Amino acid sequence: MRGKSERELVALLERTFGGKRAQRSVLVGIGDDAAVLQVAGERLIWTVDTAVENVHFRTEWLSFEDVGWKSFHAAVSDIAAMGGTPVAALSNLVSPESMPVAAVRALIKGQAHAARALRCPVVGGNLSRGSELSVTTTVLGRADEPLLRSGARSGDELWLAGDVGLAKAGLLWLSRKSKPSKIDARARRAIGRCVEAWRRPRALIRWGERLRRRAHAAIDISDGLSVDAAHLAEASRARVVIEEAKLRGVLSRDLVTASAVLGVDALELALAGGEDYALLATGPGRARPRGARRIGYVEKGRGVFLEAGGAMRRLRGGGFDHFG
Amino acid sequence: MRGKSERELVALLERTFGGKRAQRSVLVGIGDDAAVLQVAGERLIWTVDTAVENVHFRTEWLSFEDVGWKSFHAAVSDIAAMGGTPVAALSNLVSPESMPVAAVRALIKGQAHAARALRCPVVGGNLSRGSELSVTTTVLGRADEPLLRSGARSGDELWLAGDVGLAKAGLLWLSRKSKPSKIDARARRAIGRCVEAWRRPRALIRWGERLRRRAHAAIDISDGLSVDAAHLAEASRARVVIEEAKLRGVLSRDLVTASAVLGVDALELALAGGEDYALLATGPGRARPRGARRIGYVEKGRGVFLEAGGAMRRLRGGGFDHFG
Repeated sequence: MRGKSERELVALLERTFGGKRAQRSVLVGIGDDAAVLQVAGERLIWTVDTAVENVHFRTEWLSFEDVGWKSFHAAVSDIAAMGGTPVAALSNLVSPESMPVAAVRALIKGQAHAARALRCPVVGGNLSRGSELSVTTTVLGRADEPLLRSGARSGDELWLAGDVGLAKAGLLWLSRKSKPSKIDARARRAIGRCVEAWRRPRALIRWGERLRRRAHAAIDISDGLSVDAAHLAEASRARVVIEEAKLRGVLSRDLVTASAVLGVDALELALAGGEDYALLATGPGRARPRGARRIGYVEKGRGVFLEAGGAMRRLRGGGFDHFG
Repeated sequence: MRGKSERELVALLERTFGGKRAQRSVLVGIGDDAAVLQVAGERLIWTVDTAVENVHFRTEWLSFEDVGWKSFHAAVSDIAAMGGTPVAALSNLVSPESMPVAAVRALIKGQAHAARALRCPVVGGNLSRGSELSVTTTVLGRADEPLLRSGARSGDELWLAGDVGLAKAGLLWLSRKSKPSKIDARARRAIGRCVEAWRRPRALIRWGERLRRRAHAAIDISDGLSVDAAHLAEASRARVVIEEAKLRGVLSRDLVTASAVLGVDALELALAGGEDYALLATGPGRARPRGARRIGYVEKGRGVFLEAGGAMRRLRGGGFDHFG
């Protein structure tokens, strides 16, 4: 849209519809990962996500089945981020006339596999024609106490659940024009797992459920660790500090191996990587669930910082910005 | 999509996802106006609807505010058809970069007005870029006993709630290249109301609620009276008979006046017209709510027939088909 960033338009949406939060049944409106509604005695989490071809995905390196799987997990990941359990989904496909039926079928198959894996049945939907392919997935979940991105408090630990950076490494590998011809079997396997992480991410529903009663805040890492940490910091009006040594310590072996082949710093991939759909949460040290890795802390202030060797560098938009 | 009709692809969706109805919480899956879920002690109705520019709408005769209003009412109409009360909506816009911000703002304003009119707050959503404008609206409603299209029984009366044909007349007027220059004030007002019916339809929520405990089946008329009657007949495995004299008797004055100006049979417009979002329901005579107009009946058999002067003509795809 001409002359305005998406963020400004989301702000426009918030201004236009935000006042409706006053409605008794709407507990959380526009701005979090999903809306929270009070219906009967239950809290429902509700989210919608659209993937447009050539904007959010390209079929150069993805099969249509991958597109179905990936878009479905991406949508359900918003439910995971709030500690919710998926109930059901609606799927809405817009597809061009030129798209072969076999491709539509493959896409639907990918969605069906994802729906089964996540125990989130597709109960309705719509097929329309249009000039470009887009997949809109709406998911309903439930959670008695949904986790919000706005709940982080000074003194909280910063937790990572799931791996981060692999999907980015996989994508980087696929997009490299000249690939090294000689890589050993171990590196090949690592690269393969990175590509798979990008093609077939998994929404961390079990992790979200485990975090629900323990964490103060959570967000799923879809845009990148540093970008999503910034969203969490902003919503919580707090500062998020990532400790470089701790983050390095929890990077997966596959990421370290793949980044060496790619000639990129694994830490950079971890900070910029997003499409793995790992969860970032904050909470009191005593409540940290087993297996959630501490990678930093929350303090008073604003923004996201990387702490390394006693120095603090402010992180912006996924990269480094020397500051403070 | 090449070589397959949308209907066949919906059948594909049903085959792929249909088995999931077995899930305890899913009461009605793909195939009705909306899905029905059992969550906590409550039944939720859930629907999604996409309007794609140049497929479902053109901005030649609609302002962007109209597009926002109309697409929102069209989505909520599926809740009305099941006798539900809307709870909240999610809005998903895909818009091309070339679309001016003022146009996006106008579209959102139209949605906001519709949301207010229908007491159905927009609680979340998404903005994405794409090569064409599309508006996806997801609506959640509640209804203890949702009306389905499959409930019609032989012996039921056929009821119409709301007007039908006006939107079609309005669209026909707008699309006429040469318009009669001399029309009187009354005709002008009638035409104006038809155009307004097409641009600013209203989802008949109150009607749906009133029908809920009285009717056996209902559907909203979005594709056309005869087409949607056929959907109801098919889902109910019954025959729907529309009595021509009765239907003529309930046509609105505006439609009759406008159709005279247009030189078209008002009955044709009523049978083919859809975008008014009137409700078609069936139920026992003693239960007919005040104001619902009886336009026919349900009997054993299949298909939709028009009964006139003792003869039965089968209706297909909105027009006449001499048969029987």
